[in-house]
Formats: sequence, C-alpha cells, structure tokens
Amino acid sequence: MRVNRRRFLATGLATSLLAYGEHVMSDQKINIGLDPTDLTKQAIPTPALLVDLDAFESNVKTMAEHCRKSGRGFRPHAKTHKCPEIAKRQMAAGALGICAATVPEAEALVAAGITGVLLTSPIIETSKIARMIALIQQGKSVMLSVGHPREVELLAEAASTAGVDVDLLVDVDIGDRRTGILPGQPALELAQLIAKHKRLCVRGVQSYAGHASHVVGFEAREKTSREAMGKSVETRHLLNKAGFDAGILSGGSTGTYNIDSTIDGVTELQVGSYVFMDIDYRRIGGKTSGENYSDFQHSLTVLATVVNATHPDRVSVDAGTKALDTTTNWKPEAKGWPGLTYNRGGDEFGILTLEPGAKLPRIGDRIEFIVPHCDPNVNLYDRIYATRGDKVEAIWPIAARRG
Amino acid sequence: MRVNRRRFLATGLATSLLAYGEHVMSDQKINIGLDPTDLTKQAIPTPALLVDLDAFESNVKTMAEHCRKSGRGFRPHAKTHKCPEIAKRQMAAGALGICAATVPEAEALVAAGITGVLLTSPIIETSKIARMIALIQQGKSVMLSVGHPREVELLAEAASTAGVDVDLLVDVDIGDRRTGILPGQPALELAQLIAKHKRLCVRGVQSYAGHASHVVGFEAREKTSREAMGKSVETRHLLNKAGFDAGILSGGSTGTYNIDSTIDGVTELQVGSYVFMDIDYRRIGGKTSGENYSDFQHSLTVLATVVNATHPDRVSVDAGTKALDTTTNWKPEAKGWPGLTYNRGGDEFGILTLEPGAKLPRIGDRIEFIVPHCDPNVNLYDRIYATRGDKVEAIWPIAARRG
Repeated sequence: MRVNRRRFLATGLATSLLAYGEHVMSDQKINIGLDPTDLTKQAIPTPALLVDLDAFESNVKTMAEHCRKSGRGFRPHAKTHKCPEIAKRQMAAGALGICAATVPEAEALVAAGITGVLLTSPIIETSKIARMIALIQQGKSVMLSVGHPREVELLAEAASTAGVDVDLLVDVDIGDRRTGILPGQPALELAQLIAKHKRLCVRGVQSYAGHASHVVGFEAREKTSREAMGKSVETRHLLNKAGFDAGILSGGSTGTYNIDSTIDGVTELQVGSYVFMDIDYRRIGGKTSGENYSDFQHSLTVLATVVNATHPDRVSVDAGTKALDTTTNWKPEAKGWPGLTYNRGGDEFGILTLEPGAKLPRIGDRIEFIVPHCDPNVNLYDRIYATRGDKVEAIWPIAARRG
Repeated sequence: MRVNRRRFLATGLATSLLAYGEHVMSDQKINIGLDPTDLTKQAIPTPALLVDLDAFESNVKTMAEHCRKSGRGFRPHAKTHKCPEIAKRQMAAGALGICAATVPEAEALVAAGITGVLLTSPIIETSKIARMIALIQQGKSVMLSVGHPREVELLAEAASTAGVDVDLLVDVDIGDRRTGILPGQPALELAQLIAKHKRLCVRGVQSYAGHASHVVGFEAREKTSREAMGKSVETRHLLNKAGFDAGILSGGSTGTYNIDSTIDGVTELQVGSYVFMDIDYRRIGGKTSGENYSDFQHSLTVLATVVNATHPDRVSVDAGTKALDTTTNWKPEAKGWPGLTYNRGGDEFGILTLEPGAKLPRIGDRIEFIVPHCDPNVNLYDRIYATRGDKVEAIWPIAARRG
C-alpha cells in the first residue's frame, strides 16, 4: 500500500506538537505517530522491519531469470515473508503461484488475488481442511500436499461433502524427517489411496530437503541435494509409470536453487529466503563466490535506536528477542558499524559491545541490523517498511502472519 | 471479549461443510473457521496460545494478597502479556497501575481505560515522546522513566511545547547494565537536571535487577536482589534528602517479589511473569518449595497438533520457532506426555522424540506445551484463548503487541 496524503489529512489528528496521524493499513489501523506521506528512514519508529527495495527487486529478478534460463517454474514460498505485496511482485516476475506454510497464509494470499497457491504443510484439523475446501468452493486456485493416509481420508470426506475437486501433491520425505511419506512404494500407495476418491486428484510430488538447503560448501550441498531430490524424481517416475499424471515435482530452496534446477524431473522451485537473504544463508558459500553466498543481496534489516549509553563499554538498543530473532547460532550484524557485536539483552533490548579500536554509537543513534534468519524475524512484525535510499516508498502489511 | 452467538450468526458465513464464522475481535477480524460460541479446547485451531483461567486467577490473587499483606503496592508489567484484558484483571485485584515496556503497550493500556501506566523503558525518538505527551494531553494517567540527560532535554521540550506536566521516575541501573543511570550522585544529578524544567516532576525511582530475578536458589537470589535494590533505596534517600519528593521506588520481579517486598523503601513491585509462569522461572527454586519454584502455577501453554507420524522414533507438531519461543536454554514441555522431548524442527515444526519406554503420540493428537519463557512466546501471537477445563470462555486480543 502506498501511503496517501489525502487519507492522512482526512484523519485530522494533528496535535499541537507534531504532525501526528493514523492511516489505515489493510484491515488494521496503524498509528506510527508521524505523517506517513513524507516518511524517511530516519523517522521510522523503532524497532522496525525494513526491506531495501533496490536489493529486493534485484533478488526477485535474479531468481526469475535463473528459472527462465533453466526452463523451470518457480512457486516462491510465502512462509518467508507472509506478505501479499511481496507475493504480487513475485507473481509479476513470472512465478507459477505462491507456496504457503499455513492455512492463514493461504487465505491471505488468495484474498490478495494470488493464484496457484500451494499449501506445503500437512493439515489434520477438520476446521483447517474446511477452510481450504471453502477456498476451492469459491473457485480459487489452490493445491494441497498430503503425506499420510489420515489426511487423505479427511480431505476426501470434506471434498465429497462440499462437491469440489481437490488437486494434491504427494509430500515425499527425502531425508528431512519432518513431513511427508517415505519415497518409492509408500508414496505410490498413498497416491493409489488418493485415486480411490473421485474428488481428489494427484498432480505430482513435493519434497523439501531442509537438510540440504544450509549445507556449507557448494560441492557438499550439491551432493546432499542431488541424493535427496533423486528420491523424489524416482518417486515421480514411479507414479507416472503406474498411470498417474504426476506433472509437478515441486521442491528446492534458496540454498539449492542452482542445483535443483539442473536435476531432470524437477519442474518448479519453492524458493523463499532469496527475496531477503540472511546471515544463515550467507555463510553457506556460493557456487563461484567462495565462503560468502552472494547470489542474492541482503534486503532485510531491523532498524533500532540506541536508548542507553551509561557504560563506556556498551550501549543498549531497543531491539531484543521480541524484535530480532536469535534462534540460530549467528548474531545480528550492525550495518556500517564495524567492530560492534550484538548480544542478547533480554526481550526488550540488545547490548552492543566493542572490539578493540571500534567506535561506540551514541544515544539516539539509529542502527540497521542484518538479521540472522529471515523467516522467524519477519514473523515478529505486522508491517515492513519498503525503503529506497532514505525514502519510505510503502508500508506493506505482513498480513499472513495472523490467523 | 466474550464470544457472542448473535454476532456470529449475524455474519451469515455458514458454508455447506461446517459452521464457519468470522467474529470481530478488537480492531481486527479473526477467522478461526469455527463457531466461536461453543468452542472447546479440542476445536481451537493450532498452533494456539492458551491461558488456563483457574491457574491464572489463582496467580493474580496470590500476588495481590502477598502485596496487601506486605504493605506494598504492585504495578504489574504488561510486557509479559501485552493484553489489556489481563491488565484489567490485575487492576481489579488492586494494582496501582500497569507497567509498559513500549509506547504501543502504553497506548493500548490507556485505550483500555487502565490508569497509572508507567513506561519503564527509555525513549529517545521525538515521535515516541510526542505519543506519550499526547496521552498526557488527553488527561491520561501515565508516568515515564528517564535514565539519561538527553531523554530529559527532549521530554522537557515536548512537555513545554504541549503545556503539560509530566511525572517521571529516575531509572537507576543497579547492576542490570541495560537501562538507567548509575545510582547515587549521577542519579541525583539527573534528578536535579529534571528539576530545572518546570513541566517535569520527579516522583521517585525505578530499578530493574534483571541479574537478580533468575538467580537459582532462594538464598543466592535474596543476596543478589538485596545488594542491587539497596542501591536504589539509597538513591531514593539521597533524592529525598536533597529535597525531592521521591515517593515511589518501583522495582522487583516475579523471581524476587517475596524478597523485594521485605526491603524497606521499596514501595511497589513491577512483577510480570507471575500471571503465566514458565520453565525459566520454575527452575530458580522457591523460598520453601525446593528446586521447583511453585509460588505460582503454570497457566500458559501452546497447543499444537501432531501432523506427521512417518517415522517410528518421532512425530512432528505444527509449532516451530514461529509458535514456540526457544531463545532460552530450556525446552517446551509436553503436558501429560512423560518421556517426550521437544526438539526444534525449523520455523514451522517441532519434533517430538522419545525416552525409552515412553509412548509416541499419534497423528492428529493435540498436545499442550508449557513454554520456556512466557514474554517472547506471547509476543508471537495476536490472541490468547482463555480456557476453563475444556471450555473456551473468551478470546483475548494481545492488543499491545502491535505498533
């Protein structure tokens, strides 16, 4: 959503002290205490989540071009951004659709007009199955993944009751050990179970090799991903040999996009993090770029303010565990502040300490941090400030966070 | 907010498949895909945040009675729950007011009619200062804490421009090293700087001894907290000797409530976690209860569903790092499932593994987890299901999360 001067003025909430406004953002009112029409990065209330549009647009383009040149489709994963505005830009770049990890994500994407939504996670609650079926009843273009006979039974019952046809991918566990059925015969039997229900249709196979995506070193990663995805390719062949029309093999990640796109039988990539990048991905190393994986640029940061400078060896910023995800082993990095180390300072604060010779920020200084892991960090916020240089071009709701 | 059958029926969104409804919750629409009027715990969409009302009400009462008997006030901290409905219940139990860690928290509390709101964190952004001043201009009862001369300058300017009087506590750093000014002379000098501005008024002192709250073992904790709070008591005396009317010394935590309430000069407790409890607090040990701190009951859980059971040694639940905070060293505990261990399974999933002889849950089973650390876990959710036994009595918005 572009900020809108008329809407701001219409609220008439100026105080004697400051231009002070509310503007409606999607379905919620956001009060950032500032005129949103001329917002600069310097004035964004902290802690805040920022996306640098130049870097973001470059990432969107790079992945789209890679897939086009490789003759593969891509269905980027919204679990990374939970943001329909970003999904729209991925679709405009040529995506086949968008993946969702949760039913609320799928609903938010569909509500934003996204087609080709694929729910990649298993659902076993009847109310969630009903919500997905309701989307199909409304004529929306969605697919589901199944990895267990119980899911098939529940879906078949719901689809039959509602009188709708449901397209399914067989979720195959190729070593991730989190979701999906085992490859080969067990997957074929699940497909055969699906085929017994006339309202359900096998469209292909899905696999996520989470154990491959973050392997450090390109060669080691390539070996792991080829072994894993090979099981999925074989399973797809097995299904097709048995008479299924398994047209889709959806898989891959930001870490393996240029590996999986060379594997025969992989039809589309479920890449997510590439739009933002993070420290967790940077350290895996690139095909040609050495230790730092630099195929995509860091577009995502958390902006924080120095709010305490009592001690000579440290300052506090207003971004703690509620604002900066620290569930990985990596620390947030202060952009443009060499020699500063971010340390956890509880839920509300981060503590910045110094390497010898480094310069300590002053109270009121504003610091951008590159995040260790993009997905759970985005999940901490309800909106993302889309910036270009010093200008805030838009404020995008992270609409699929809720539900 | 109590769920309301009339409102549900008015939406008229029943589908052929399921009673399917939307109901308005605060300023946002929540679609949980179910009739919310007769909701049972069994039907809550997962992952979900739950508060057990019997345990919660017992905790609220226990703390209130302790403070009454000790002759101390209490101003519970909303950073724990970010939930105006909970704040209202703390006020009804006799709280002097409610503490807030952020400006959006303060705004949400004030909007809910809470009086005596104390912002315990430093703010240095002019837009945030303006938002707090705007609350005072509207006649709301709020106080701020300051720990640096720069905060005083900015507040003085804003208060003077707006023509309002602002009550302040001097935030004293008694060993936490995150916020506040050093005790003794530096704190006195800050008070004297405040006194130069006629719109600003020193009302007392605030301290948070975060380094004391989680000390394991009651005696060691008592020693740490007495040493720390002693500095704050001395500072308050120093201010009063210098002619200030420092009526308030606000501090303490759930871990030190029964220590700080015996220290002369401490006037009120800023307890937070006691309403929910968590594993991080349980392990600190109690005054009389041995290794497990059992003064307060575990009222907070995350409800999850088993969504994968492909392997004989593990199952996956639909609660990963986006749903269960794992930033502490402790693991979520599966209630009523002895011998199960929760392991991180990425952002979307948790992996439950088995101790020898333990029983693995089946697909579709629903499991409640006691959370390792309540504050950042609540921060992952927009609503909390308030349950009594198997019944959902209310759905409370975590309204102060946003902003």
